[in-house]
Amino acid sequence: MIATDVGRLLISCPDRPGVVATVSHFLFDHGANIIHADQHSTERGHGTFLTRIEFQLPNLEAQLPDLEQTFKQIAGRFGMEWRLASAAHKKRLAIFVSRQEHALLELLWQHRAGDLKADLALVISNHPTHKALVERQGIAYVHIPVTSGTKAQAEQEQLRLLDEYRVDAVVLARYMQVLSPRFLQHYPARIINIHHSFLPAFVGANPYQAAYDRGVKLIGATAHYVTEELDAGPIIEQDVRRIDHRHDPDDLRRLGRYIERVVLARAVGWHCEDRVLLHGNKTIVFN
Amino acid sequence: MIATDVGRLLISCPDRPGVVATVSHFLFDHGANIIHADQHSTERGHGTFLTRIEFQLPNLEAQLPDLEQTFKQIAGRFGMEWRLASAAHKKRLAIFVSRQEHALLELLWQHRAGDLKADLALVISNHPTHKALVERQGIAYVHIPVTSGTKAQAEQEQLRLLDEYRVDAVVLARYMQVLSPRFLQHYPARIINIHHSFLPAFVGANPYQAAYDRGVKLIGATAHYVTEELDAGPIIEQDVRRIDHRHDPDDLRRLGRYIERVVLARAVGWHCEDRVLLHGNKTIVFN
Amino acid sequence: MIATDVGRLLISCPDRPGVVATVSHFLFDHGANIIHADQHSTERGHGTFLTRIEFQLPNLEAQLPDLEQTFKQIAGRFGMEWRLASAAHKKRLAIFVSRQEHALLELLWQHRAGDLKADLALVISNHPTHKALVERQGIAYVHIPVTSGTKAQAEQEQLRLLDEYRVDAVVLARYMQVLSPRFLQHYPARIINIHHSFLPAFVGANPYQAAYDRGVKLIGATAHYVTEELDAGPIIEQDVRRIDHRHDPDDLRRLGRYIERVVLARAVGWHCEDRVLLHGNKTIVFN
Amino acid sequence: MIATDVGRLLISCPDRPGVVATVSHFLFDHGANIIHADQHSTERGHGTFLTRIEFQLPNLEAQLPDLEQTFKQIAGRFGMEWRLASAAHKKRLAIFVSRQEHALLELLWQHRAGDLKADLALVISNHPTHKALVERQGIAYVHIPVTSGTKAQAEQEQLRLLDEYRVDAVVLARYMQVLSPRFLQHYPARIINIHHSFLPAFVGANPYQAAYDRGVKLIGATAHYVTEELDAGPIIEQDVRRIDHRHDPDDLRRLGRYIERVVLARAVGWHCEDRVLLHGNKTIVFN
Repeated sequence: MIATDVGRLLISCPDRPGVVATVSHFLFDHGANIIHADQHSTERGHGTFLTRIEFQLPNLEAQLPDLEQTFKQIAGRFGMEWRLASAAHKKRLAIFVSRQEHALLELLWQHRAGDLKADLALVISNHPTHKALVERQGIAYVHIPVTSGTKAQAEQEQLRLLDEYRVDAVVLARYMQVLSPRFLQHYPARIINIHHSFLPAFVGANPYQAAYDRGVKLIGATAHYVTEELDAGPIIEQDVRRIDHRHDPDDLRRLGRYIERVVLARAVGWHCEDRVLLHGNKTIVFN
Repeated sequence: MIATDVGRLLISCPDRPGVVATVSHFLFDHGANIIHADQHSTERGHGTFLTRIEFQLPNLEAQLPDLEQTFKQIAGRFGMEWRLASAAHKKRLAIFVSRQEHALLELLWQHRAGDLKADLALVISNHPTHKALVERQGIAYVHIPVTSGTKAQAEQEQLRLLDEYRVDAVVLARYMQVLSPRFLQHYPARIINIHHSFLPAFVGANPYQAAYDRGVKLIGATAHYVTEELDAGPIIEQDVRRIDHRHDPDDLRRLGRYIERVVLARAVGWHCEDRVLLHGNKTIVFN
Repeated sequence: MIATDVGRLLISCPDRPGVVATVSHFLFDHGANIIHADQHSTERGHGTFLTRIEFQLPNLEAQLPDLEQTFKQIAGRFGMEWRLASAAHKKRLAIFVSRQEHALLELLWQHRAGDLKADLALVISNHPTHKALVERQGIAYVHIPVTSGTKAQAEQEQLRLLDEYRVDAVVLARYMQVLSPRFLQHYPARIINIHHSFLPAFVGANPYQAAYDRGVKLIGATAHYVTEELDAGPIIEQDVRRIDHRHDPDDLRRLGRYIERVVLARAVGWHCEDRVLLHGNKTIVFN
Repeated sequence: MIATDVGRLLISCPDRPGVVATVSHFLFDHGANIIHADQHSTERGHGTFLTRIEFQLPNLEAQLPDLEQTFKQIAGRFGMEWRLASAAHKKRLAIFVSRQEHALLELLWQHRAGDLKADLALVISNHPTHKALVERQGIAYVHIPVTSGTKAQAEQEQLRLLDEYRVDAVVLARYMQVLSPRFLQHYPARIINIHHSFLPAFVGANPYQAAYDRGVKLIGATAHYVTEELDAGPIIEQDVRRIDHRHDPDDLRRLGRYIERVVLARAVGWHCEDRVLLHGNKTIVFN
């Protein structure tokens, strides 16, 4: 259950004495009760201060504009990047998928179980494969074929749909097309990809074959925000599992699917609960 | 490096609005800069509030008495259990050990490497086995034999030594004697034991044989504060490792040693860095 | 892909010199090529010898009766318990489920992905909840309500269905009814249950609440063969995950579901691939 | 305890029917009882066959020359690479170390505990740092300074010592010098290095800083046989641990030490128990 009176305040600013005192007073003055808070200071208090505060405030949604107005002044004073959000206001996701279904299925499942706190707005695919499956759950499925000749046009249609469906974030659930820089600019730090290796090892195509050829003893998966440089965006989550000589490349692909799905679902869940803060090309996850 | 101007404030109190604001103001007013803070509220803000704050304050040691005096009033107002400590003031440990050396060795090693932030005041054993090893590191080793007839007397001698060496906490590093309730009362929540099973499975003697007989697929170890009821005190840390049919009870004992040593060392380290707070018969570890 | 010419030979017998030589000669003489073999000797060669051999033999299905006939003599000589199976002959499973769907969904999914090498013959539930979901995958769903008064009758109907559908093994995928000893006798070492704790800790009902109350730092799940004594049958697989003070009992239930589903699926998969051998109240898993 | 009558037979050869039957008959005919056997066939029986057989044979050492003589013919027939070894004949190790002690300490400890089945013949270091520590355990310590000008000469002295001490394998326990191709040729697949990253990520110097800069969520260590190409030899073992935003590069170095030491010790232990077979640039570990 997401209570309707729970809010989240996220802040990133140059560290200096008084930040915590000021922010906690602001919340106290407005009748908000802090129920959880995480904070981190880089360079032992001499770099950037980052925090995520979960608070309870009766009638939050109605008070939000007011709160934001007042906080703007504090934020200005301390040079803060910040956002205030109601936990009841779920993020709207679009899932991009190609032929492989495992990452999509996990998200559908976690959504259905109530574990993924998000609205699944629509699924976009360059294949018609999963249409019935997705629509059965009451989610729109749009098939947009992509060829080298039609890619620009396809992206335009995708962007139009994201707009139409008021999408907050895009999840690439094993979507096998590279998105253009132009596309990426529309959703900075809001496009999450799952790469099927423990990055930065095995960047690029066919990482399981590469892992097999190198003879590693663990395979992994990495969820990251997509940036222009391939597989080089800020890492949100990674995990691995042990393999051995009995596993051929097909086994790695099969076993890897089960890491990919959980790593992606964790990253998406954290993003939707406002647990991921950017700091340069890295993430700070308050989970 | 432990900076001499880093302090820690630990608080546990009934939750209510204004606690964070008050505490952070107190620190700000005294010129302290928060460099890390963890907090937890049980029952979503309607139970107990617990926090651990690490702050930087020039000339801390000199100011500590003053800080404590002022904070006493805040603490009284909110019904707080609390303590203020300088990170530079290391806890003094006594290690109790019997014949097995692995847990002792790990603590000596981590101490030597500077990873265990504590003073090893002395080692007490019911065997003379490790005398040379311990003394070589410049640590006192006292051999106090224990038989059923001499146990009370032995404990009296142990308590006298703990007093003489101004010991803050006792680590039972595979010490094979049960301590009396009378002994325990002198060090409430300050005696840490390593039990060689994943508690509450396999309470009591010979847990590896019991694990073998039951055919479990993972074995574990548990570090906990010692209370009167055997193996039932607040758990600080646990870990496990996979085993299979090729492992006989001796293998489990051998493999288990490597879990025991890291689980105990982690728990002791956290205790010494004031990261463990008690909440009923459970611990909250801010690590 | 399961090749149609792959067979499996499983043997358990008193250990003595010559077993391996005899068995490997038998296979060689019949033109079978060993592609994988696992073996284990308890008590360092003086107890029980257990092996699982995967071999390739063209036209296997046709030759199977002949092979079995010949092997019977070897088996008699060495006092072997054994079975010969074609990998192409998939086991037929019945899944028993109550209201919670996660364990069922995982099995459906792994089956659909081709990762669970079995035929899902039917699903039996004491609730109508998952009827549409299951039937959509082309699997029969039978709703058999169970009350204390109708339990014996319900079990009779269940047994009739298992017979009708020629079921080889039963999977209790969070089925919340205790099966009678009479029922169990029909499927010795062929009923797999998932228990939502790291057994033998937290036997019985509501293990997540019990885990929360005890303050453990890891929660787990256990897949085991069902025997008359509750939660005491041979363990096939176990796994755990880390939790901390921020997780309340509902969180444990939620997080635990993701361990339960993978632990059960692994155990069922191994059973279906003839990788699990019984040895007293324990299992030997050649995986 | 290593029984004096336990032998190990390791084989690698082109796969073909009859290999297992022939080898098991050979052992049976000589009165050997197989107590454990692992085998692996690449390409599902159409590539290379690899096996490790542990057997019991009274009076093994005396019979070994005879066994080898007879087996030579079988080996010739099947084109086998093979070796026969008595488990009682421990491998003699040289440990190379620089200033950091953790990997060395773990090996000394495991040796002392009887868990590392090897003879520690000598320790060679480019620093005098650990002389007292090593000699106290009754192990020779030779300080051979290495500068760019004296490297060739230093290696000559090292090789002479390895010869003098009849060393079977060399362990680079955080030895910060690159060995020349000429040196490596003397110990093919018998020099084990620990690299402080999850290879192939972060090849080269300062991997913890690189891991920090990239923002990975897990750090790792890799034990591998040393070949001419830096950090590219056959991987024997790898492991990882989770880190988060609170860990700076120094924390990674500190935490990483505890992965390095166990990964190296596992790899060395497996090598000494003849559990590691080479297959191209990969290893097959029968553990």
